[in-house]
Amino acid sequence: MTGRHVLALSGGVGGAKLAAGLAAILSPGELTIVVNNGDDFEHLGLTICPDIDSVTYALADLNDTERGWGVKDETWQAMVMLRDLGEADWFNLGDRDMAMHIARSWRLRAGETLSQVTSRLTRSLGIAHAIVPMSDAPLRTQVGTADGWLDFQRYFVAEQCRPVATGVRFAGAPGTPPSPAFMAALAREDLGAIVVCPSNPYLSVDPILAVDGVREALAARRVPLVAVSPLVGGTSLKGPLAKLLGELGKPVGNASIAGHYGALLDHLAIDIADAADAASLQRSGLNVIVTPTVMRNTRDREQLAQTVLAAAGLNGGWIRV
Amino acid sequence: MTGRHVLALSGGVGGAKLAAGLAAILSPGELTIVVNNGDDFEHLGLTICPDIDSVTYALADLNDTERGWGVKDETWQAMVMLRDLGEADWFNLGDRDMAMHIARSWRLRAGETLSQVTSRLTRSLGIAHAIVPMSDAPLRTQVGTADGWLDFQRYFVAEQCRPVATGVRFAGAPGTPPSPAFMAALAREDLGAIVVCPSNPYLSVDPILAVDGVREALAARRVPLVAVSPLVGGTSLKGPLAKLLGELGKPVGNASIAGHYGALLDHLAIDIADAADAASLQRSGLNVIVTPTVMRNTRDREQLAQTVLAAAGLNGGWIRV
Repeated sequence: MTGRHVLALSGGVGGAKLAAGLAAILSPGELTIVVNNGDDFEHLGLTICPDIDSVTYALADLNDTERGWGVKDETWQAMVMLRDLGEADWFNLGDRDMAMHIARSWRLRAGETLSQVTSRLTRSLGIAHAIVPMSDAPLRTQVGTADGWLDFQRYFVAEQCRPVATGVRFAGAPGTPPSPAFMAALAREDLGAIVVCPSNPYLSVDPILAVDGVREALAARRVPLVAVSPLVGGTSLKGPLAKLLGELGKPVGNASIAGHYGALLDHLAIDIADAADAASLQRSGLNVIVTPTVMRNTRDREQLAQTVLAAAGLNGGWIRV
Repeated sequence: MTGRHVLALSGGVGGAKLAAGLAAILSPGELTIVVNNGDDFEHLGLTICPDIDSVTYALADLNDTERGWGVKDETWQAMVMLRDLGEADWFNLGDRDMAMHIARSWRLRAGETLSQVTSRLTRSLGIAHAIVPMSDAPLRTQVGTADGWLDFQRYFVAEQCRPVATGVRFAGAPGTPPSPAFMAALAREDLGAIVVCPSNPYLSVDPILAVDGVREALAARRVPLVAVSPLVGGTSLKGPLAKLLGELGKPVGNASIAGHYGALLDHLAIDIADAADAASLQRSGLNVIVTPTVMRNTRDREQLAQTVLAAAGLNGGWIRV
């Protein structure tokens, strides 16, 4: 017997949109959102979890949709003052966003786990669905460059993805256990589908797969795994995926996404702009859904969430919010 | 031989104004401002030093003169978000002020002393004069109440000084050494005067005097000690001094201020509104200066600084900024 519970794996902004779409049509008991925290880092004494924050802000309807990241109606007074005080300014910290980092950091220092802090803070913001870090232990995504291995935020923000990537690695893996709620979701009797949100496979999803036992658990799954491709019109909508694919010697296209996930993948949702990719992907044995994947608003997010769940065989009865 | 160097002892807002006046007319080499840090506390994982910040903001011309504390042009976005996140909101943290606490906290955690951090941050804000914590070790001012001993900020901010005070104590004293720069200033060959700024004697100056060896060094001084009374018109201009004097069974008046400092005091500057106090104070052997002590603007601050230095015998040649 398979059930209706959905396990979603998400990175930051793109993934967060689909996660919010899923949260809009599934009840809190029907969804566990596991978020990449390989991007987490310590900065000015604060523990910053960019992907957890992106998912949190999206579900709390606090995300800035114009800027594409961070909190809406954000101000930058603390950042200006930090600069005046001679502190590092390569990572932008908004005033409202800063409150999240302060709250998280002091509670982590007080002994709470990242899972506990995340649960506490998301609930405080009125989020009923479970947002779960992939692990409570640090696993750190690093990008290989001519200058050596760079921590993710150094590569992504400080260097703005300019260095040519020679590889991606996850410091701490193996040896990083899944968070309790991630482990519990993987083992649920009523699991009905696993959804890989449209996040960068190398930088945002692979860290989740690098957590101890996750790849094995997904390989042994008894429920469909549906991924949404982060490529649109043959390139990345945002972020360094297209550049990274090229540097890693892979064609920039959905065949590379499908090839990367390999046997873990049952269904791949690709954008209507890439409909031409469908035939060859299907010949390789994959179920392909051609559907609009660009999520500009709430309706787009919910529509894509419905399509993805339908592909997984979880049809109908979704509560529209 | 006595010289021209001035050692100023300051608490928060009122003291900070005179400290800024002294900084405006003395060169950086002529002034050491030692600031009470008995009010410091840990809040949301941040080390907050209210008096050091008040002096810093006053000298950097960043102080909010209307609100009377904190940074001018302040915003409160992080505070609103912290409240939404379920965090304690009894201590108001402005966005610009927050940057100060973040910068200080992470550098303290990285191993810098409070003296080093304070020097670094004040210099970054363009302050050339030395702002020095009384100690790099924690000495914590506590106020006795019917409910026991309250940490200063709990009494001052959370309880808004409402509890009847039964006493004041300094946790950590004796056993708290002066900061290196405080010790050096006390021992300077060219020390010319010691100025006690118009701060609360019990809550803001006594903690400085409670630092190991300070009371003894001041008692053995070879230079004049001038205090500016924090009372104006027979009451406290701001803060709990008048209420506290009453609760401690002292008359609310300059006789209590003079009596409190006792033999440490050579000159007491009192406000023109309290001119009637002068005769009896002088009869007790004190030199009394009757002068405007309310500092509403830069000119007032510098004028009072000039008057105080003149009383100490350091006449003329001040650079007007």
